[in-house]
Amino acid sequence: MVANSEFFMNLALKEAWKYQGLTYPNPAVGCCVVSESGAILSVEAHKKAGLPHAEVEALKSAYFKLTNDEFILKLTNSADIHKYLIQNHNGIFKNCSVYTTLEPCSHIGKTPSCADLLSLLSIKKVYVGALDTNPEAACGNKKLLDADIEIQNGVLEAKCKELLYPFERWSKDKFVFFKWAQRLNGTYDGGIITSKESRKNVHDMRDKCDLLVIGGESVRIDRPTLDARLVDGKAPDILIYSRKSEFDKTIPLFKVEGRKVIISDNLDIIQKYKNIMIEGGANMFEATRDIVDRYLCYIAPKVGGSKVFNTNIEEFEILNILQDDKDIIMWLSSRQLIDEHNLG
Amino acid sequence: MVANSEFFMNLALKEAWKYQGLTYPNPAVGCCVVSESGAILSVEAHKKAGLPHAEVEALKSAYFKLTNDEFILKLTNSADIHKYLIQNHNGIFKNCSVYTTLEPCSHIGKTPSCADLLSLLSIKKVYVGALDTNPEAACGNKKLLDADIEIQNGVLEAKCKELLYPFERWSKDKFVFFKWAQRLNGTYDGGIITSKESRKNVHDMRDKCDLLVIGGESVRIDRPTLDARLVDGKAPDILIYSRKSEFDKTIPLFKVEGRKVIISDNLDIIQKYKNIMIEGGANMFEATRDIVDRYLCYIAPKVGGSKVFNTNIEEFEILNILQDDKDIIMWLSSRQLIDEHNLG
Repeated sequence: MVANSEFFMNLALKEAWKYQGLTYPNPAVGCCVVSESGAILSVEAHKKAGLPHAEVEALKSAYFKLTNDEFILKLTNSADIHKYLIQNHNGIFKNCSVYTTLEPCSHIGKTPSCADLLSLLSIKKVYVGALDTNPEAACGNKKLLDADIEIQNGVLEAKCKELLYPFERWSKDKFVFFKWAQRLNGTYDGGIITSKESRKNVHDMRDKCDLLVIGGESVRIDRPTLDARLVDGKAPDILIYSRKSEFDKTIPLFKVEGRKVIISDNLDIIQKYKNIMIEGGANMFEATRDIVDRYLCYIAPKVGGSKVFNTNIEEFEILNILQDDKDIIMWLSSRQLIDEHNLG
Repeated sequence: MVANSEFFMNLALKEAWKYQGLTYPNPAVGCCVVSESGAILSVEAHKKAGLPHAEVEALKSAYFKLTNDEFILKLTNSADIHKYLIQNHNGIFKNCSVYTTLEPCSHIGKTPSCADLLSLLSIKKVYVGALDTNPEAACGNKKLLDADIEIQNGVLEAKCKELLYPFERWSKDKFVFFKWAQRLNGTYDGGIITSKESRKNVHDMRDKCDLLVIGGESVRIDRPTLDARLVDGKAPDILIYSRKSEFDKTIPLFKVEGRKVIISDNLDIIQKYKNIMIEGGANMFEATRDIVDRYLCYIAPKVGGSKVFNTNIEEFEILNILQDDKDIIMWLSSRQLIDEHNLG
């Protein structure tokens, strides 16, 4: 293993994937700051809309590592961190390199521009994974060049584009992902399967979704709530995908306030939504193959159970594996989809 | 994420796990060399008996990183690397830290002692994960202290002990692991499941085993060879665990030269062996629960198939996840076993 630019970019990528799906209306981005001698000063990610961008989080941590100035740790607002760094950096970043999975933003939105911040701190070199195709935020590289900062584009570009893909789909149209949870041996019957940590992550995802699609059979058998209570989040609208429209309305999901519940055997309703999670088992998996952009699989390291995720063959590419305190959380893409894209 | 001593030790651990099961009669060990300023100079592992220890591999790579002296890259023999480093180091390591998952060895076996090498190169500080309990190799720390090298013991100690566990079991008695391969949804019927890379890894494991246990049903249905041809390795002896002793002797496994094939419904035969791999499905899994030390699971990122790994409940702890070009390779321990050890 060699600690080269791919290694540092990979650290930024791994950190960013932890927050995949949780950053809308912003993309998931990771950032790593490295000293002149090659020491890792920080690795951070953008965690949530309203919180600082990845670059700002990483520069804050790097500043603390270099100065031990605890004052900055109290600052959580992006504008405050920008201001404090600009006033107090004293040139400590001048030989540092920054690895960012996405071209630094150039527009001033909820926070000042990251490209401006990097320029003002006289960063030596910025390694960029994917270029920003969002016209509002792009041109960060141009600002960096104008400030005489070296740029190296395309470091682990394919991986960085993959990290960005859900956001790009979401911005241009909508992002649809299929989520399932299972034991190691593919079973998903018999009560709660995954750890509390994993279920919190699912609730966090639900909070960021506007529509959750679920099969009628799951609703009848599991009588779910399908809200985001574990993170005090907002419950998404529900599409119960079912030919029969009769449901016992005492099932908890119908009682969640402020949500719409649609019962339909027509998936076209998803066209009205932007961030769509499909939850379910093998039947929903089969029914939604043509509309799913990415898959999200939670695996609890157990065997046992009897009802299995039995489907026709589908091959995946593993995009990221995350291990929480207990389970595996894995983002996947269909190989068929990849092949079709390559043909197209 | 903070680049502290746990971070560096974790890099060493991840590298070492790649060679778990392949290093007998030596333990799996990883090593990371870090410069004075905190830059990662190298991360290496012990790969195989006869090849250099992890510390030597890591010091070789770090030397190259610091000097660009390509001559050292040609050296593969441990004694030659020792000699070259001792003659040419010129004090470049004097402020470096070394993170090693196991206390450096002190005895001179196939290679000179690592503790002596670290002392002669005037390493500043050595971070040790687990202490060596092997009386022949231990006392490395004492040699380091005698040479005025700082030591910090117990960095990620539990994880480092876990890495060492198969070797410790093997040295004291025997190590038994259960290996299975499956698709994501737990199925394992219908021909080859895993990638060539994974199968090579299995053959490499077989080459290092002295006994492979397999169920009679698997032998009859799959008609396997169970050798190590993908790595030009030695085929282990076979125990076919079966009540019926009649087998079609044209099944390829019977034709492999230099191997013993035992057919028995008594697992006590494993007592005569040291490194035992059990391959099979759910039945073998159930039959061998009480004798298995660790589990090794290969997961191909596919769904489909119909025959599932259906078992009674077993909860695991994930010890390491490795992703090869395509599949997941995962070492697991039974939680029950862990609980029993904690009680005991």
